[in-house]
Amino acid sequence: MTVNIKASFAFEFEQPTSALLQFEAADLPEQEILDCTTNITPTEHFARVGAQENIGERIWIRGEGLIEVDYTAKVQPRRELYDLAELSALSPHELPGEAVSYLLDSRYCPGDEFQSLVMKEFGDTSGGARIAAIRDWIYNHFTYAPGSSDPSTNATESFVARQGICRDFAHVLVTMARASTIPARYVACFAPGVEPPDFHALAEVFLADPELPGGGTWQIVDATGMADLNNTVKIGVGRDAADVSFITSFAPMNFRNSNVEVSADD
Amino acid sequence: MTVNIKASFAFEFEQPTSALLQFEAADLPEQEILDCTTNITPTEHFARVGAQENIGERIWIRGEGLIEVDYTAKVQPRRELYDLAELSALSPHELPGEAVSYLLDSRYCPGDEFQSLVMKEFGDTSGGARIAAIRDWIYNHFTYAPGSSDPSTNATESFVARQGICRDFAHVLVTMARASTIPARYVACFAPGVEPPDFHALAEVFLADPELPGGGTWQIVDATGMADLNNTVKIGVGRDAADVSFITSFAPMNFRNSNVEVSADD
Amino acid sequence: MTVNIKASFAFEFEQPTSALLQFEAADLPEQEILDCTTNITPTEHFARVGAQENIGERIWIRGEGLIEVDYTAKVQPRRELYDLAELSALSPHELPGEAVSYLLDSRYCPGDEFQSLVMKEFGDTSGGARIAAIRDWIYNHFTYAPGSSDPSTNATESFVARQGICRDFAHVLVTMARASTIPARYVACFAPGVEPPDFHALAEVFLADPELPGGGTWQIVDATGMADLNNTVKIGVGRDAADVSFITSFAPMNFRNSNVEVSADD
Amino acid sequence: MTVNIKASFAFEFEQPTSALLQFEAADLPEQEILDCTTNITPTEHFARVGAQENIGERIWIRGEGLIEVDYTAKVQPRRELYDLAELSALSPHELPGEAVSYLLDSRYCPGDEFQSLVMKEFGDTSGGARIAAIRDWIYNHFTYAPGSSDPSTNATESFVARQGICRDFAHVLVTMARASTIPARYVACFAPGVEPPDFHALAEVFLADPELPGGGTWQIVDATGMADLNNTVKIGVGRDAADVSFITSFAPMNFRNSNVEVSADD
Repeated sequence: MTVNIKASFAFEFEQPTSALLQFEAADLPEQEILDCTTNITPTEHFARVGAQENIGERIWIRGEGLIEVDYTAKVQPRRELYDLAELSALSPHELPGEAVSYLLDSRYCPGDEFQSLVMKEFGDTSGGARIAAIRDWIYNHFTYAPGSSDPSTNATESFVARQGICRDFAHVLVTMARASTIPARYVACFAPGVEPPDFHALAEVFLADPELPGGGTWQIVDATGMADLNNTVKIGVGRDAADVSFITSFAPMNFRNSNVEVSADD
Repeated sequence: MTVNIKASFAFEFEQPTSALLQFEAADLPEQEILDCTTNITPTEHFARVGAQENIGERIWIRGEGLIEVDYTAKVQPRRELYDLAELSALSPHELPGEAVSYLLDSRYCPGDEFQSLVMKEFGDTSGGARIAAIRDWIYNHFTYAPGSSDPSTNATESFVARQGICRDFAHVLVTMARASTIPARYVACFAPGVEPPDFHALAEVFLADPELPGGGTWQIVDATGMADLNNTVKIGVGRDAADVSFITSFAPMNFRNSNVEVSADD
Repeated sequence: MTVNIKASFAFEFEQPTSALLQFEAADLPEQEILDCTTNITPTEHFARVGAQENIGERIWIRGEGLIEVDYTAKVQPRRELYDLAELSALSPHELPGEAVSYLLDSRYCPGDEFQSLVMKEFGDTSGGARIAAIRDWIYNHFTYAPGSSDPSTNATESFVARQGICRDFAHVLVTMARASTIPARYVACFAPGVEPPDFHALAEVFLADPELPGGGTWQIVDATGMADLNNTVKIGVGRDAADVSFITSFAPMNFRNSNVEVSADD
Repeated sequence: MTVNIKASFAFEFEQPTSALLQFEAADLPEQEILDCTTNITPTEHFARVGAQENIGERIWIRGEGLIEVDYTAKVQPRRELYDLAELSALSPHELPGEAVSYLLDSRYCPGDEFQSLVMKEFGDTSGGARIAAIRDWIYNHFTYAPGSSDPSTNATESFVARQGICRDFAHVLVTMARASTIPARYVACFAPGVEPPDFHALAEVFLADPELPGGGTWQIVDATGMADLNNTVKIGVGRDAADVSFITSFAPMNFRNSNVEVSADD
């Protein structure tokens, strides 16, 4: 299978402004980049730097006025998916240091506030079965409603609102996983099947690897149920959306528009 | 100079609970650990793992009932301090990837909300002079008031409250630095001079290194004005207090007491 | 039945400070004050003013240093209680103007954030049956845990925390009632049966009065299940705890202690 | 002088929904309604009820689909304006009961959080001079920026953002007045001079009335500096924007558009 991606977006800076972009498919063993093109309106500065966990790259620009970004890619994902409910968790003291920080509170995912709730609502499950139960609970209790949340919405607010977009679904899942002492991170991605088409987000949780005794691996989970996980293409990862936004501006920005098309073919 | 540290604290778990501890002086080129002892009530599990940026170690425990921690250390800091106001900032596109994540929003430090404010209030300064101006502004406008904040207080709330403890002073400085496009992180530490004696916290900002063209280094800053920076001993660093608490529990915990004594002698 | 009340509390002002106290049983048709005494450390100013909806009185004091309050009362409640589940709601357009403001968001009760949730979770009930279902849901899903919340905790935070004190239980119920377009207010009270003994809080909702066609009455509801509603004695009402705290200080205050004893006898 | 008002707005309900509207000039001694027309798409229910403090009316509707509102009015304001800085405050214990609730925290105006800040920044002023100083400080430190805030933004967030719309300017002023122990309320209004033209909001503070010994009156204050206070026409008042929104829906609503024109002529 090949996943074809076309993404474009535009924004405007009122004054010379530095911004961080992250919107390209990451080059990873689980997804081979067959072909890609990136075009950005020329700016004063342009620099690439490795992104979080060295998954993908962040692009620094510094510019003014209207800036347009066009991106196309052809990607071949080869992802081995497990049945989440079959995977067990590692004990906290067995976790590698890199995974531990994904247990801690972040901007939009205050796991500590959810500890009692997950114990009460999901206390009879553990490991991957706990994650699957949380995923299904979110899927069944939330409405996917573009416009119902904004970039400052956190998981506590989303949990009460019972609605949001992919970002909010992922934040709630990440937060409840952390409250369950299971490391969880946020994944920006491209995925066929997202309706309306847009950048997508889902979560990854760190669980025992069935083929690696004592070790763990990150498993993707989508509480929206929209993404075809075999054909999902990762852009980057982070503690939450603050780490892997497709644009992070360091001065006022006017967002103009975006368009994303993702399709999978044989 | 030698810094002598004695720290002890105790807490109680109602049920078998996993918790993460980070309270020991980190072994670093800038501070030599001459001697140290750590005693913790025996627990079901005990494991050490490298902490954030490999500065110090986190200790996993899993236990039940009353747990007591006793720590003593003798440390020799050799820290080169610069005059902050003399240091310039690196341009964002010159920052190494590791520093970039310290520009992004974290649990208690939502830098993006402060962008207009820092531009209006500190727009005539840049680099280290900006940081020094922010530090002095906090020092002059905030009251150090134990009990006036709690572990869920974030920098926005502290900024309005105009009071707090070292944690809150550090969060406000970190947040305003990030809003200035200067990477900033939170540092848990031991410092002589803190009144009342306690674990201390301050900030580090990433600025151009005067001896390393094109490169940068982390510089410590204390908005409380209490810490003797030459004799401050780092425990660990993180995006904010969520990453480097001396105890992070993953189930309800009753905190009992803590005692910290830090002194410097020749 | 007679309810006997003894309440005392003490606090300290660092500087001359104005504060509002509301801690006395209200004189109402539904509860006759047989006897009462109020003693307050003499202060610079002392003035009584009618409290919200003219239920009870607020006392202004202006003083400095340690201030002690002692209160005793003997009260005879004569409250007619209905089976909540049997009562219907008034249509919004039938509500009297005074009840409408209890549909709107207040400091700790942001009803609008809960609209989707109540529709999803309680959409098959209406009127008093909806309120009874919400009350029972809170009772079954929350833990009464002194110390788990603080005076700044709002209903959104409590809903996620799944724990709190009477104040938090009442805030969640009030908020979900408002989200159901049923006016709801917060009631500070004395109630036998509260464990540990303390000032208590519960909610009142405005529902159709079975004996008054087209009209409505306020019905008390306690999601903690602790209060004996026949012997509950109201202090005052408000939009939420911000309106009817037993002490509201307009400058820093150090709270010293409180003691409340409530018993009912024949 | 006569103020001419034309206002229209439209919204859509996905399902039969109850909503509260408040958009008409209030009939008050200080502003005579010479002429007015209100047209609303016919709905299942329509009922008028007195609004907060009996200033203006709230309209209940229950309808479905697209609903359009058209309003025109000709109003003659006769408002006596005082020089704020000349007015003194009443002592808290002299305040009438109705004014006291405007000292307490509300949804968007948590006055208690600002007590230290107003003491530190405005401690050398009192009464009307304090209010004038706060008004001028907001005017000089905030940017009027449509789109920079949203309906859930509170005064704490606005204070840090240093930008917002009339609603946010009013919330910050109301909050800082309450923190100064001066009752303050939110006023929805029509005002010539607002740019871009829209519904406007400002604040009222309760200060000693120079012509009424021992008594007080509400004085209007506009921190945006845009409104011509002589020709401002009040719609209604409340604790904050939650009480006097031009539309409060009790189920999901899609806002379509609004248009407001206000002019003054001789």
